[in-house]
Parts: sequence; structure tokens; C-alpha cells
Amino acid sequence: MMALAGIPLGLNFRFLDPSAHACAGPLGKLHRAEFSDLLAVQAMASEIDVATFDFENVPADSARSLASARTFHPCVNALEDCQDRLLEKRLLRSLAIPVAEFQPVSSRTGLLDAVEKIGLPAVLKIRRLGYDGKGQVLLNQHEDLEPAWQALGQSDLILEAFVPFTAECSLIAVRNEPGEVRFWPLTKNAHGNGVLLLSRPGVLGADLQAQAEDTVGKLLAHWDYVGVLAVEFFILQGRLLVNEMAPRVHNSGHWTLDASVTSQFENHLRAICGIPLGDTTMTDHALMFNWISEMPEMRHLLLEQGLHWHDYGKNPRPGRKLGHATLVARNESDLMRGAARIAQGLGGRWPELLARLDGRS
Amino acid sequence: MMALAGIPLGLNFRFLDPSAHACAGPLGKLHRAEFSDLLAVQAMASEIDVATFDFENVPADSARSLASARTFHPCVNALEDCQDRLLEKRLLRSLAIPVAEFQPVSSRTGLLDAVEKIGLPAVLKIRRLGYDGKGQVLLNQHEDLEPAWQALGQSDLILEAFVPFTAECSLIAVRNEPGEVRFWPLTKNAHGNGVLLLSRPGVLGADLQAQAEDTVGKLLAHWDYVGVLAVEFFILQGRLLVNEMAPRVHNSGHWTLDASVTSQFENHLRAICGIPLGDTTMTDHALMFNWISEMPEMRHLLLEQGLHWHDYGKNPRPGRKLGHATLVARNESDLMRGAARIAQGLGGRWPELLARLDGRS
Repeated sequence: MMALAGIPLGLNFRFLDPSAHACAGPLGKLHRAEFSDLLAVQAMASEIDVATFDFENVPADSARSLASARTFHPCVNALEDCQDRLLEKRLLRSLAIPVAEFQPVSSRTGLLDAVEKIGLPAVLKIRRLGYDGKGQVLLNQHEDLEPAWQALGQSDLILEAFVPFTAECSLIAVRNEPGEVRFWPLTKNAHGNGVLLLSRPGVLGADLQAQAEDTVGKLLAHWDYVGVLAVEFFILQGRLLVNEMAPRVHNSGHWTLDASVTSQFENHLRAICGIPLGDTTMTDHALMFNWISEMPEMRHLLLEQGLHWHDYGKNPRPGRKLGHATLVARNESDLMRGAARIAQGLGGRWPELLARLDGRS
Repeated sequence: MMALAGIPLGLNFRFLDPSAHACAGPLGKLHRAEFSDLLAVQAMASEIDVATFDFENVPADSARSLASARTFHPCVNALEDCQDRLLEKRLLRSLAIPVAEFQPVSSRTGLLDAVEKIGLPAVLKIRRLGYDGKGQVLLNQHEDLEPAWQALGQSDLILEAFVPFTAECSLIAVRNEPGEVRFWPLTKNAHGNGVLLLSRPGVLGADLQAQAEDTVGKLLAHWDYVGVLAVEFFILQGRLLVNEMAPRVHNSGHWTLDASVTSQFENHLRAICGIPLGDTTMTDHALMFNWISEMPEMRHLLLEQGLHWHDYGKNPRPGRKLGHATLVARNESDLMRGAARIAQGLGGRWPELLARLDGRS
């Protein structure tokens, strides 16, 4: 999606990916190599002007190698902070940004100590490489500790207080080299089994938007950040608590392709290439559906007017995100009527998930 | 642009083009061959499900060859009618669609006879392969006839009455196999030396829109057309006269990428692939600038908020269209203020051209 946004700007792309089937491959030149292959990284660096990444598990050594050879955004510090839940939480606390209680855990007794301090319920998480709810266990009672330790104890861990949130949301921001910052409207998100399934932008109030912009503004300034940054929040009694951060374009911002003057992909490229930032105003009411494990029947769903289809051209695999679709409408009632038709047609959990995005809380 | 619109729909592309630098090439597989190369056409046909074209000078034999092997839209009849100004005009007259007086010309005396019937001023045009005002001469007085004949007499010709139009506009429509038709709003156009330089959609009234939709609807039904059709009109005292037709996505419809729920490119693909048509509603006020011969400085122009950039990645050549940019805004005054800043920055003829698109006539 980033390459599709960049081609009209006259940009040419090189991709580093271990898979011969990398879905971006056909849109530029694919350097097929492991992300940790420093020789391949340097070979690619010799062919480009600017480097970036669209997933945060790029090895820091590869990032540093690229950054030493070429303009590289966002900075390696941001990448490293966001790769480790403990560094992430410590940074947030140092910037006086509200975050759930947390404790590092590196031993069985350390886990007991942490539970002592934080109380239950709490969530035990691996510090690195977790995603989509993987690598974490909810601890409700003391009997849950030993199985959780058995499951995760081989990794560095963090224990976080469970947040009884009323809703989840995310803010996407972009900052350029001169320090200009733009925000898209907060997006309310609904997950199923830890996987983002539905997003609806622009439905949360000005107070939450201001809280979120204040938080994300502090992070952008701290890192002297260039590019798109996404921060996920819990909403708890009208206050925001940071859940996690992603130093990249984000799943919950894909709706910007179809309902914002400028998409997160285009503005990320504009920021890192020194092109003026584009307008982040929403153009329409919007609701985004994510397609996981399999693509639903496009020809049926596109009977719904205002639905935009995004097939990533990936091979189906259980749990893999294969695409998304964004419904746009001129007003809220048309949007929610159309979304209800789609959710009913899809069946399963969709109508219940959609109901979660109906309110403003 | 069609491939960029089709990739998110999960479509894969093959391109037939004589140039190794065809700008679509990197977005699919390029079959490099002359358009008249029937062996290459058949080789490509064996790899695809559906065939179409995006410029109308595809040889009819190649089109028929493709159509005999694969689903091919729009139909070869529409292609052939639009390739020849005489067939085009005769078809329009047979459908009772208003068109300027015309006469075929195939000899010097035939030219005299035609001028006798039509009067002066009139325009002598080659019947086939003309574009951007090339292959036509304005005849104001009898002294102009001989030089015009010298210049064009080796081709089949048509003489058309000169239309003292007040403005030019175009209608883009899409029709699918079941016969469903959608129209985008009429686009008012400004040319310089026969080349389209500025387009502004949605600024002409409901009466002209209805006239245009009636005309284009007749053509679509006549051909049992599938895909996007563009018809260019002269506006003369509140009435529309057809100037010419293009059986394809059209220059004057590129603004639909940035200011319509569904672009002409996506809807053309939806129509020819049997995917439900998308909404053609305008999402914003819009004005499109075409970049001819050279690309202006993107980094400066994109300081204008709401400007969308489209660099086709083509090698510059005098008179060649290399890209376009569409300015979008939430209201008319913001649009025209922004457009004025851009036109003044570009200088030359731009401010005068822009003034032509300011009114509603």
C-alpha cells in the first residue's frame, strides 16, 4: 500500500523481504534476503536514497546499518523503544504519559514479586516480538501463574496491570524533518482474539482527541521523529492509557486510503522524502473491516455502495491478515446502516463487533 | 493508473506495448510488441481472462483478434466508430444527437463542395488518428483552403462547421454487462493549443448534465457498451453539441481518482470484470491541472494543501503529457483561492486558463 501511494509521487521502490512472494515485490525491485542479512541490507542501501520500514521487528543492527549509509526514518531509537514493551513503558513513564502499572519479570520468584506489587488481574507478556495478542496470558488468580510461567518463562517478560477498559482506540500522527506534526482523527477499534477486526475513525470526542494528541506529540518530540507513528490506547473512564506504540503505518489507519485527503502511506512517504505533508482531514464517515485467514466474496460485498476493497494479494493462512475493506458514507446513519448490512451478511461475530463501535464512549 | 486502481481489487495485469519503457510495465507483465502484432496479441490473450484498452488507436484487427479469444470490452464496434470522425458523426446523426454540420472530403473539388454546403468558418480534420488538435486546420476564408489541402489532403478528411462555443465540457459514464449505467458530474475543460490543460467537475448546471446524460445514454445503449465511455461536448447557447468521443478512460476524468467515491479507472475495471459498479458521487470540489512537456516542481506545489500529485513516470518529450495534479477542497471559495495561488505560481497562460473555469456558463 505504501508503494501504491508512492508511485504517483514519482518514487521508485526497492524492497527487502525474505519471501519470494512478498506482496510488494511486483511494485519495485525485490531484494530477497533475511532482515538480518547485513550484506543484503548494504547492497540495497547502495541503490536507494531513503530507507524506512513497515513492520517493527526489523533487527536493530540492520536498521543501524541502513541508517549509517542512507537517510533512515523513523529513527533507530524509536524502533528499539517500540520493540521492547519494557523500554516502551519506561519511556512513557519518563515522559509522564499515563500507562498501566508494570513490572519486569525474569524469574519465577520475580513473577510472584510482580504480582504482589501489581495485584490481579494482570497480564503477563513477552517483552519482544508479540503481536495480535500472541505471547501474552491473562492472570486472574494465583493458580494461573505457574501455567503462564511454563508457557512464556523462556522469554524476557513484563507483567502489566489489567486495564478494565471500556473501549480501545488509536491515534495516527505524522511528523516531518522541520518538526511539523499532523494528526488524523482518533480511530475506535474492536478486536477479536487480540486481532484488529473493525476500526471507525472520527467518532470519539474532542477531549479524547486532545489527550491523545498531547501524548503522541510528546513522543514525536522526544524521538525527533520523522514519519508516521501509531499509538494504541485504552479508554478508561474518559481517560486514555497507552497500550502500545508502532513506529510505522498502522492497521488501524488503513481507512485513510479512502476517507482522508491524504493517506497515512502517502504522508509517511512525504515526511521521509522531504515532500510537504498533506491534509489529514477526513473526507467522509468511514468504517473499516479487516479480512483475516480468508477473503470474503468481493463480488457480493461490493454491491454495498461506498465500499472500497483492498486485497493484499497474499496467500491465505490461518490468522493471516489478507486484506481490508473501508465503507465510506456522507453521514453517520447511512454509514451504520450499510455497515449493519455487511456485518449481517458476514455473520459470525461481526454484528456484535459492530455494536461495539456504535457509541461515542 | 488503471493498474494502480486494479491491484487492490486483487487483479493481475498483462500489458501489450511497443515500448520497453511503458509506464505501466512495472505493475504487471509487459508483452513488448507492436499493437498490430497479432501473434503477440494471441500470446497475451492466452494468459488473461479479460482484455481492454486505454487508447483508441488500437488496430481493429488486433481488437477483433482479442475479442475472438477472450472477454473484450468495450466492444470492437464502439472502438471502430470512435476511430473515424466520419463514422462517429454519422452514428450521432442516426441517433438524433445534435452535432455540427459535417461533410466527408476526399478530393480538392470535394473540399470546395463541402465548403459550399457548410460555409466558413469551418474545420478540416483528418478522419483517423488525430488527437490534441493535431491533424486539423481552421478555415476562415477561401484562401485557407489550398494550404489546408496541401497539409492534410493525403488522408481521408472531414469538414466540420466551426462551432463558436462558449465553453467545452465532457461527460464520463460507465455501463456494466447487465446494462446498469452511472455518470460522473460534467467536467468543464480548458484547452491550450488543442491540449487539455485544466478540468473542473461539477460546476455546470443540472440542465446541461441531463442533456449530456441523455446523449451518452443513447450511445451506451446503441453499442450495448461495457466499460467507461467519455464524450466531449461544445456548449453553445445553453445547448450541447458532441465534439468527439473516446471509448475509454479519459484525460478529463482523472480527477475522479481524488474527488469521487469511485474513480473512472476502478469502475472501468469493475464493469469489464463483472464486479458491481461503485458510487460515482463527488466527494469534494476539485480542479485538475495537466502537466505537459515537463513536470513542475512537486516539492513547491505540494505546499498547497489538498493537492494530489500524479507523476506518470514518463520520459519528458515536447507536447507529451507527463502527469497531472488535482486540487480538492471542501468548498468552492477555498478551491478557487488555492487554484489561483497555483496558477500564479506556474505563471504563463495558467491564470487566464483558470479564469475560463470560474463561471457556470
